[in-house]
Amino acid sequence: MFSNTKKYDAPIKEMMLLARNIPGVISLGQGMPNTELPIYILEEIQEIVKKGGFNKYSDLVGTSELRQAVAEHLMDKYKKCSIDFEKQILITCGAMEATMSALLSILNFGDEVILFSPYYPPHVQQVLLAGGKPIFVNLDESKNWRIDCALLDGVVSNKTKAIIICNPSNPTGSLFGKEDIENIIKIAKERDLFIINDETYNFLVYDEEKFCSPLHFPEKIQDHLISCFSFSKEFAMTGMRVGYMLAPEKIFEKAARIHDALTICAPTLSQKIALLMLQNKDKWNEGYLDKFKKKRELMLSKLDKQSFLYSMPHGAYYFFVKYGKNISSKKIAVKLLNEAKVITIPGEGFGEQWDRYLRLSFAGEEREISQGIDRINEWMLK
Amino acid sequence: MFSNTKKYDAPIKEMMLLARNIPGVISLGQGMPNTELPIYILEEIQEIVKKGGFNKYSDLVGTSELRQAVAEHLMDKYKKCSIDFEKQILITCGAMEATMSALLSILNFGDEVILFSPYYPPHVQQVLLAGGKPIFVNLDESKNWRIDCALLDGVVSNKTKAIIICNPSNPTGSLFGKEDIENIIKIAKERDLFIINDETYNFLVYDEEKFCSPLHFPEKIQDHLISCFSFSKEFAMTGMRVGYMLAPEKIFEKAARIHDALTICAPTLSQKIALLMLQNKDKWNEGYLDKFKKKRELMLSKLDKQSFLYSMPHGAYYFFVKYGKNISSKKIAVKLLNEAKVITIPGEGFGEQWDRYLRLSFAGEEREISQGIDRINEWMLK
Repeated sequence: MFSNTKKYDAPIKEMMLLARNIPGVISLGQGMPNTELPIYILEEIQEIVKKGGFNKYSDLVGTSELRQAVAEHLMDKYKKCSIDFEKQILITCGAMEATMSALLSILNFGDEVILFSPYYPPHVQQVLLAGGKPIFVNLDESKNWRIDCALLDGVVSNKTKAIIICNPSNPTGSLFGKEDIENIIKIAKERDLFIINDETYNFLVYDEEKFCSPLHFPEKIQDHLISCFSFSKEFAMTGMRVGYMLAPEKIFEKAARIHDALTICAPTLSQKIALLMLQNKDKWNEGYLDKFKKKRELMLSKLDKQSFLYSMPHGAYYFFVKYGKNISSKKIAVKLLNEAKVITIPGEGFGEQWDRYLRLSFAGEEREISQGIDRINEWMLK
Repeated sequence: MFSNTKKYDAPIKEMMLLARNIPGVISLGQGMPNTELPIYILEEIQEIVKKGGFNKYSDLVGTSELRQAVAEHLMDKYKKCSIDFEKQILITCGAMEATMSALLSILNFGDEVILFSPYYPPHVQQVLLAGGKPIFVNLDESKNWRIDCALLDGVVSNKTKAIIICNPSNPTGSLFGKEDIENIIKIAKERDLFIINDETYNFLVYDEEKFCSPLHFPEKIQDHLISCFSFSKEFAMTGMRVGYMLAPEKIFEKAARIHDALTICAPTLSQKIALLMLQNKDKWNEGYLDKFKKKRELMLSKLDKQSFLYSMPHGAYYFFVKYGKNISSKKIAVKLLNEAKVITIPGEGFGEQWDRYLRLSFAGEEREISQGIDRINEWMLK
């Protein structure tokens, strides 16, 4: 179904590719934690390797140990959830394969899927690849990126099958509030829609009281809720490719068969490492989460208020900034790359109307954030 | 697009699931080499782990080192191939993700894809998931599973987009001959079709002179040839999830974007291990390939000729055997599981007309093969 997807960009991938052969570039582009795994973890992984056995397929749905551990992890976070890991948890090759499997599980050709714009670009690609039609509901920065319930209700048709939410949001770093989530649940129930809930960044919320998830109200929506999670960002293991899906039993069964036809199983060694990270999560979290808070403050303090408008992100590790220059975001991102030697992601990749925005990641090193923003500020004032 | 796929089975997955809670079962089911990685490899992996850095995304298309190494590996095997790894090699989460990406790259909704039956079941699932329509061309055991060219030509329509071949064949272990390959190429060229060439088992050919691949004639077909390869079986690393695709540049570019929306990248550590295996391939192959030859002989010597008809497999590690009892293959496989405690895969999972066949894998340990076949023979004579 690729032919339909050309008008939608893969802006993150494209900027990273453009930057590959430019020396001295600083990346505020791809959202990848720069953290190395600590020595105590590397030593444990060496012990796992020494024992062998990780070279074979795991159970296709994931190892029992990891499935049980993530179910407990989720029930610890969302106290009202009751999860039967055998019937509801699918381990995938990252959250990306989880959302793809979810869409392939529920869509027939031509079904519509609602996404909020600014959107996470691969979600649009995935809807198209699964034979669906993406329908966009615009969010408004001046209203803190909150949902306009009338707008949402207005686009639901008898072809609508699902609403995708990415909360905390990539690219804006904003959070949906309790009212937003309740409205989405209400509309999903009334119109018999699935909610595909991408919670890749649910661990990284700077103002916890503002965060709300459909998983806070399982009794209201659990039959129509497919939630997708990642180890990549929470445990700085983007390269290990492990994520998971929590779904109602019927969807789990379909998704498991689809997963089998996409990748067979998640990497066995990566699953063992994911389990290790969960077992060490308190120790790991100590230093890890504070770093992002500091980096957010750093980027905030450096961003020139004369060149940019932006709101403070309450989650994830992105600023989505509006600039005043009369140049499209693609052009400015390429200029910033070639002239200021900084990778940024053009806003129009997250929805065509965001063509005066840039996404800036603060997942990297403090030195990079500091120098990267200095370079951008300087270039903007020229 | 899942709703269409229900009538096709995932027979391998289903038998493995059925067997999970039955004690003392011997598996002749899933085709997974039982080989453990040798100590010298495990030690090298520990060194890789010690150095760190594997926790991050690789280049989305794969690491340059591995892409270059697999290009050389292929050019070494197929002397007439000339491969630009930067423009033609995509590293994927196993050959499975490679064939899925290939299909999503070329199909529009309703396009037809030709498969030879007996087929590899996930290929059918993948065609359906990509919005395509599978069209089957039956092979005939009495003709050594060779292609009837008139039959093939007869099913090509103006909606046909591709022909999938799995050679050496899973499930039959048979090889297409030079004439078969030349006929497929001829029809593909005349009718402007892609050949999706799944060569997961190309390393495991017992009678090399009988093996022929489209890659032996790159000049004839390279613009329409998408070849998919696996590390899983060749290097006993099914659990590491690394495969690759060799494609024309235009398809590579599409497939790379699709891969990004399916899994982002193959696991970085697994890619490093795959490179290590390639670097050690001569040493590795020494013991490895001979074992399969011995196991093939063992299964051949044990299979009761009164209960089964079969041809000798010339590649891969499966016997596809016909039995005389008047029971469907699903029923007999479940009976064999529950009563004889042996996992086999029912033939009808590979095409509905193979409902008096079973697939038996000899990838496991010699002791298992020996005892497993003894149990089956005994049960059959009851």
